[in-house]
Amino acid sequence: MQRLNANRREFLSTTTSAALAAGLATGGFFSETARASSNRKLGVALVGLGNLSTNQIAPALAKTKHCQLAAIVTGTPAKEKTWSEKYGVKQDHIYNYERFDKIASDDTVDLVYVVLPNSMHHEFTIRAAKAGKHVLCEKPMANTSQECREMIAACQAAQRMLAIGYRCQFEPHHLKMMELAKGKSFGDIRMIEAGFGFKIGDPTQWRLKRELAGGGALMDVGIYALQACRGITGEEPIAITAQETKTDAKKFAEVDESITWLMQFASGTQAYCSTSYNFNGLNRVQAFGSDGYIKLDPAFSYSGIRMETSKEKIDLGQVDHFAAELDDFAQCILEKRPSKVSGEEGLKDLLAIEAIYRSIDQRKTIAVDKV
Amino acid sequence: MQRLNANRREFLSTTTSAALAAGLATGGFFSETARASSNRKLGVALVGLGNLSTNQIAPALAKTKHCQLAAIVTGTPAKEKTWSEKYGVKQDHIYNYERFDKIASDDTVDLVYVVLPNSMHHEFTIRAAKAGKHVLCEKPMANTSQECREMIAACQAAQRMLAIGYRCQFEPHHLKMMELAKGKSFGDIRMIEAGFGFKIGDPTQWRLKRELAGGGALMDVGIYALQACRGITGEEPIAITAQETKTDAKKFAEVDESITWLMQFASGTQAYCSTSYNFNGLNRVQAFGSDGYIKLDPAFSYSGIRMETSKEKIDLGQVDHFAAELDDFAQCILEKRPSKVSGEEGLKDLLAIEAIYRSIDQRKTIAVDKV
Repeated sequence: MQRLNANRREFLSTTTSAALAAGLATGGFFSETARASSNRKLGVALVGLGNLSTNQIAPALAKTKHCQLAAIVTGTPAKEKTWSEKYGVKQDHIYNYERFDKIASDDTVDLVYVVLPNSMHHEFTIRAAKAGKHVLCEKPMANTSQECREMIAACQAAQRMLAIGYRCQFEPHHLKMMELAKGKSFGDIRMIEAGFGFKIGDPTQWRLKRELAGGGALMDVGIYALQACRGITGEEPIAITAQETKTDAKKFAEVDESITWLMQFASGTQAYCSTSYNFNGLNRVQAFGSDGYIKLDPAFSYSGIRMETSKEKIDLGQVDHFAAELDDFAQCILEKRPSKVSGEEGLKDLLAIEAIYRSIDQRKTIAVDKV
Repeated sequence: MQRLNANRREFLSTTTSAALAAGLATGGFFSETARASSNRKLGVALVGLGNLSTNQIAPALAKTKHCQLAAIVTGTPAKEKTWSEKYGVKQDHIYNYERFDKIASDDTVDLVYVVLPNSMHHEFTIRAAKAGKHVLCEKPMANTSQECREMIAACQAAQRMLAIGYRCQFEPHHLKMMELAKGKSFGDIRMIEAGFGFKIGDPTQWRLKRELAGGGALMDVGIYALQACRGITGEEPIAITAQETKTDAKKFAEVDESITWLMQFASGTQAYCSTSYNFNGLNRVQAFGSDGYIKLDPAFSYSGIRMETSKEKIDLGQVDHFAAELDDFAQCILEKRPSKVSGEEGLKDLLAIEAIYRSIDQRKTIAVDKV
């Protein structure tokens, strides 16, 4: 199988498209020679073999049209063996975090999917880009907006593409909701309510450690509610206000347990949102237009999204979100066009998240920083 | 029919119960002679014959066990005739706003139901109390917390009872929701989402004039969401943050169009709420506990409240909210016990509402004033 990576030099040799400049490494993406490779399967290196990789992404990879598992990167030697046996990954394509940079010379790897704890997204995205690989990075993009900017810059400098793992952006009901909102099928969207949370288990996990996670429920799942609001409005929030409560000061000593926040958009839409690590059942988004509503409930699960509007129930079937996300990124790479879930998208979410945390700290309404 | 008002002197002559002191005029409510009158129907004077009186309260009165329409008070002579014909109210029991105080000598009237524009609640509650009548006042209790305090004081001074028209406090699904929350049937309540709004019609109506309404959507319907949160938690909010948007600056030149707000309660519950005068379909409350949820949707309509928990749908049948509210107040008067929807309850809502408006103005989190 001929791999796109064989054409890497071509990417590095041509001019930058103005349309792609923001947050995207571009290179010669629009050249005809590259387009010819559109039917190839891209090799994916999975970095971080935790629950998400094990239970969602690896099975999803098997369902993709344009991707295949080419390499694994793990800090746990025991996982090398199980993954090697299960997915037939040969020793030459197994890396640990120290050896990771050698992936530069692994021509079976076209793109690196970073599925590490949040605090490691920055480092491994930059190392992957420097190794000449395109990067798909899980959400939240990083712990801070400054890290996001550095990741975008690194991918631009390396002329590699960068996308963020916003799987809902490839889920048909989410796409339909955004389409209906944009088309004003229910008039102007006046209000959005969105919330996502769950009761987190194991108190020793990395998600509860500030150094690794950067934050708590907001960074991990609240970001879905934020994404949904930005997607529905097609705008950035201009003012954000938030509150936080902690009912279990021990378990949530380092990260946020429950946060509610308000967002105001320039066109007049308001959003009110919530997230928590301390109860189940919060998993929805509803957009109220001047002429009706659009609702997803559940909205953010890996499967089983249900949609209803003020007119009808809408069932568009179910897709594997991760497979759809991976295939889209592969197609973007193959067809030399920007990903809609660009690094800039990740940065915009982090800017909003930082405004939320700042509002909690300062107990006031915060104007969101611009990209 | 012997009327309770015949015993008015008795109310005015006895000691005040400490238990009833806050917000309630009490008098000799616990005397045995008064208790004997528990089966009498109380005469109600309706003050203000707008839509609410016409379409909800008058029909409700006919369904009550303990009340009957005894008098009407209106500023519109044409209404005198129609109401007189429809409900058989005789000329002696028809008042206008100027003549209202003569109601003091109308022994057919035991209680006055104030259904006027918000700004008139203060004046007519006080005049009714001074005329020796018990007072049921529509929500919001008044335009400001200061007015609420004066209304409470006036009723205390006149030893008359005061209740606020919080009809949902007598609706079986709302009562069940509060019972389930209090009994921790779904664990500790971590989060509440509540919203109520509608698309307001006639742009010339009093609800859109600041002088008459005091405020907009928040005062009129947002107050239901606020009440629901206070009822579910059984607590007062300690910190409030809010935002406002206006998409129709002409129609909503004087009052708020859409407001979202956050409330924090001492025990750790957070609420995120919304209200609007500019779209339909927002009418719900959901309490998320550590072990499941309780939801009303629709929650605040005059009828058709639907309830569901994480375990089951609950159908407790439908009651006429206004009839239940009127009968409860009549029973409170007849049985000499305080109303749970006391003036103090109305005051607490106004304190929260003032905090919401202050948060919008000052763009910061506001500590709610104490009663």
